[in-house]
Amino acid sequence: MSHIHENRKKLVARVRRINGQMASLERAIEGDTECGAVLQQLAAVRGAVNGLILQVMEGHLRAHVAGPGSSKRQDELLPVLAVLKSYLK
Amino acid sequence: MSHIHENRKKLVARVRRINGQMASLERAIEGDTECGAVLQQLAAVRGAVNGLILQVMEGHLRAHVAGPGSSKRQDELLPVLAVLKSYLK
Amino acid sequence: MSHIHENRKKLVARVRRINGQMASLERAIEGDTECGAVLQQLAAVRGAVNGLILQVMEGHLRAHVAGPGSSKRQDELLPVLAVLKSYLK
Amino acid sequence: MSHIHENRKKLVARVRRINGQMASLERAIEGDTECGAVLQQLAAVRGAVNGLILQVMEGHLRAHVAGPGSSKRQDELLPVLAVLKSYLK
Repeated sequence: MSHIHENRKKLVARVRRINGQMASLERAIEGDTECGAVLQQLAAVRGAVNGLILQVMEGHLRAHVAGPGSSKRQDELLPVLAVLKSYLK
Repeated sequence: MSHIHENRKKLVARVRRINGQMASLERAIEGDTECGAVLQQLAAVRGAVNGLILQVMEGHLRAHVAGPGSSKRQDELLPVLAVLKSYLK
Repeated sequence: MSHIHENRKKLVARVRRINGQMASLERAIEGDTECGAVLQQLAAVRGAVNGLILQVMEGHLRAHVAGPGSSKRQDELLPVLAVLKSYLK
Repeated sequence: MSHIHENRKKLVARVRRINGQMASLERAIEGDTECGAVLQQLAAVRGAVNGLILQVMEGHLRAHVAGPGSSKRQDELLPVLAVLKSYLK
């Protein structure tokens, strides 16, 4: 898919940041970290995964569903993206 | 918007079903209903609101973002709808 | 449940505010309101329902799961509430 | 925290399974995988992260908020867990 290909570097950078968060989470579980801090780390991972999903979904909708072309269809996409952003925070 | 206009009866029926659930929730809060049952009713309302959001969003995406026309863009919409359904359950 | 009983007025006020949002949503669907505005109203309803769920759940956890009494168990509840708040926004 | 310590092996196993899913996701982004399949993989990661959050949260609530001890408080926890499960699917 062209939009994934075009954004490949950014997407891979996000994946690797999540991998770093997961490594830190694993150390927290292996160590003696208190549960509240583990839950916070997990909430951060969830937020990062949601952000990545939103980026891939938005790219796909813009490039292949509204697009290619058509500024009218791109405009119609905006309220949907606004709602999706509020869900995937 | 035509897709809301076309589905107006179904959408209004869903809104009214939610209104009925809200009326029953209000009685439960006013009465002596135990908290677990109130939480279950709230979870049902949330599910019904999510279902309504999904229907409006899907109608909009099909009619005005992928559409009008273009079976290719409609096909590209399918994986997005599958993911949205898993989120808005 | 005492926490629902104690907060009954506030909870019923929230339920009625949601009923008002639902009435406005129904008018929007019956009228010629554009889909983006309908989606925004639906997102507002969802947020209000989530807020009500959070309030009932927090009240229940504080009064009947961590409580009655025990400031230690109340403290242990805090990181869970923080995560729940981030989910039910 | 004792409940994390006691379940450490299982929790670490879940973290590593997610790491495996992330590695496969990274290959999918680097490769030529179509967007729909990438979105499905992302949805699976999200589900696995939600499952892990639920397990840590439930363990914490049972051990340190309802517990230690008190079957009454454990019972009061059940409707909250039921609702949380429906949100974190």
